[in-house]
Amino acid sequence: METLNVALDERAYPIRIGRGLLDQCELILPYLRQKKVAIVSNTTVAPLYLGKLSASLRDAGIDVIEIVLPDGEKYKDWQTLNLIFDTLLERHCERSTTLIALGGGVVGDMTGFAAACYQRGMPFIQVPTTLLSQVDSSVGGKTAINHPRGKNMIGAFYQPKLVLADTDTLNTLPDRELRAGLAEVIKYGLIRDLPFLEWIELNLERVLAREPDALAYAIHRSCQNKAEVVVADEHENGERALLNLGHTFGHAIETGMGYGEWLHGEAIAVGSMMAAELSCQLGWIDRAAVDRVEKLFVRAGLPVVGPLLVVERYVELMQHDKKVQDGKLRLILFRQIGQAVVSDAASASQIAHAISVRSPHV
Amino acid sequence: METLNVALDERAYPIRIGRGLLDQCELILPYLRQKKVAIVSNTTVAPLYLGKLSASLRDAGIDVIEIVLPDGEKYKDWQTLNLIFDTLLERHCERSTTLIALGGGVVGDMTGFAAACYQRGMPFIQVPTTLLSQVDSSVGGKTAINHPRGKNMIGAFYQPKLVLADTDTLNTLPDRELRAGLAEVIKYGLIRDLPFLEWIELNLERVLAREPDALAYAIHRSCQNKAEVVVADEHENGERALLNLGHTFGHAIETGMGYGEWLHGEAIAVGSMMAAELSCQLGWIDRAAVDRVEKLFVRAGLPVVGPLLVVERYVELMQHDKKVQDGKLRLILFRQIGQAVVSDAASASQIAHAISVRSPHV
Repeated sequence: METLNVALDERAYPIRIGRGLLDQCELILPYLRQKKVAIVSNTTVAPLYLGKLSASLRDAGIDVIEIVLPDGEKYKDWQTLNLIFDTLLERHCERSTTLIALGGGVVGDMTGFAAACYQRGMPFIQVPTTLLSQVDSSVGGKTAINHPRGKNMIGAFYQPKLVLADTDTLNTLPDRELRAGLAEVIKYGLIRDLPFLEWIELNLERVLAREPDALAYAIHRSCQNKAEVVVADEHENGERALLNLGHTFGHAIETGMGYGEWLHGEAIAVGSMMAAELSCQLGWIDRAAVDRVEKLFVRAGLPVVGPLLVVERYVELMQHDKKVQDGKLRLILFRQIGQAVVSDAASASQIAHAISVRSPHV
Repeated sequence: METLNVALDERAYPIRIGRGLLDQCELILPYLRQKKVAIVSNTTVAPLYLGKLSASLRDAGIDVIEIVLPDGEKYKDWQTLNLIFDTLLERHCERSTTLIALGGGVVGDMTGFAAACYQRGMPFIQVPTTLLSQVDSSVGGKTAINHPRGKNMIGAFYQPKLVLADTDTLNTLPDRELRAGLAEVIKYGLIRDLPFLEWIELNLERVLAREPDALAYAIHRSCQNKAEVVVADEHENGERALLNLGHTFGHAIETGMGYGEWLHGEAIAVGSMMAAELSCQLGWIDRAAVDRVEKLFVRAGLPVVGPLLVVERYVELMQHDKKVQDGKLRLILFRQIGQAVVSDAASASQIAHAISVRSPHV
């Protein structure tokens, strides 16, 4: 087991990465403020792992409440969030009861937001079971639900007390989701860690084959990158925005196609390609660099061209993005591969061109 | 105009108290991060003051969005909160747009929670227009909505950038609401400021007659007391709990009778009497002290006996209280008048007795 500390002063917390962590409730016990937890999971993950985690905690004398939500991004809404609140209140959970998220990004984001709001804040532990959630949402404290008019529009910054990334849970992850998670792993290389990008280029097949050591390394290095950025800029006033490479385009794809049609990582891959095209148009990187990014995404089985969505719709959806400031779209672009920057240098027509270059030609 | 600073480090903010502040948009302008605000008010307050505030900001070149909610505690729910989010998104509000709450406690609590959650946090200014909200919710950063199973169950700690308490707005406040607000003013004297309690005993009629100087003094001294407590204990782990004198009983009354039947201050007055009875039973204060508290509430036109609600229902509702820890009810009791403490010393039967002594005998 490896441990990484997210050094956020009084909100610091450890991320533990390794095999078989779900069975080791002694990793969790020191973080509980009372002998009562509520575990939130979904209908896909619960049958696989909820029994194991609950049993291990119950054996240690903990009162365990199980909350199983419907699975999918389309349930990341207020109605589903309220199912958590209903159960917490019915079962007399207190502000010192701990809420545990067992599942992917949707479960983690909703559970974290529920923990942030329930009685104005209760302790929260993340047990991410997808590659995406292990390398992304487990670090940084972003929690949220969607609004019909925009993804993650309602939420809070709220840090967990502990993150347990059990790499064994990735064995049951569908191939498509593993690949979508890889989009975020690749992102860390692209925005700020060229040596890691080179490691991925060399070891991609090992990761795709789910070799435990390769997975653990990719997760650890990703979390390390994210932790460094988050510690420097917890509330996203500066450098943290770089983590949103491809996200403004990507969110437009996700919202435009309806939540759940495109996986987040797939949309991010296309969004990153659009950012690369734009950087190339601006003369910041050359065509060979764009091709290098494209080649890696293709090897990872990720899309590099968006869906059938007209440019006007992208632009409309992107106006709702949280990164808009004074009406100007601030995008994450490449100074070079391995070094991203926040920029509003691109004109509306350049943005439209980058989108159309990465859209299907029908 | 008087100014009080709530010294919460990087979340510090000023409270300005005085007459005619609504017309002085220069008090607000330095706190805006962009030339755009959304003002949230309700159907009662908006016709009185929204036009004035909006006009003053528009004259200064600010883009003003008006959001008018239905009035009443029963609308302090997710559906109404969502009306705020809908408008913010429709009107392309950004995370640097400022949200302004113009109204009483319900508007302030909901607007503050909306500001805390919208895009994970946008700047927020409070313009409280009731005595209760000027002396209570304007300090401390507690924001929330109700859940059918409990008051203020879903919320956040979120500090405003500025509070403007315009005492002129109290001229249109219904008498019953002025008196309800006084319950919280009296509370500060009861829990920690005996000289202030004595001032209230001497000056109650001036406050009830809405003499501006008396109002400003009562508001300033109340906010000062609250600010001292909040600065020492922002997230209510210790001393801050004292501010909840009468609230555990009071919330049971409010929830048990249906939100809005009893005003918060009325329920708090009865709850404080129950706490006084309990402290007397425990031998901490004598009967004369109980009578002194009762006399002041009666002079202020506040109830000192609860509604027709059976003891079992109180107990059931109090179990949901946020102050419950490890299943034990922690109440705010009197060591002496002017000095409250958090205590779990009272037994279930003593609590039941105190409730029944302060319930109608039918």
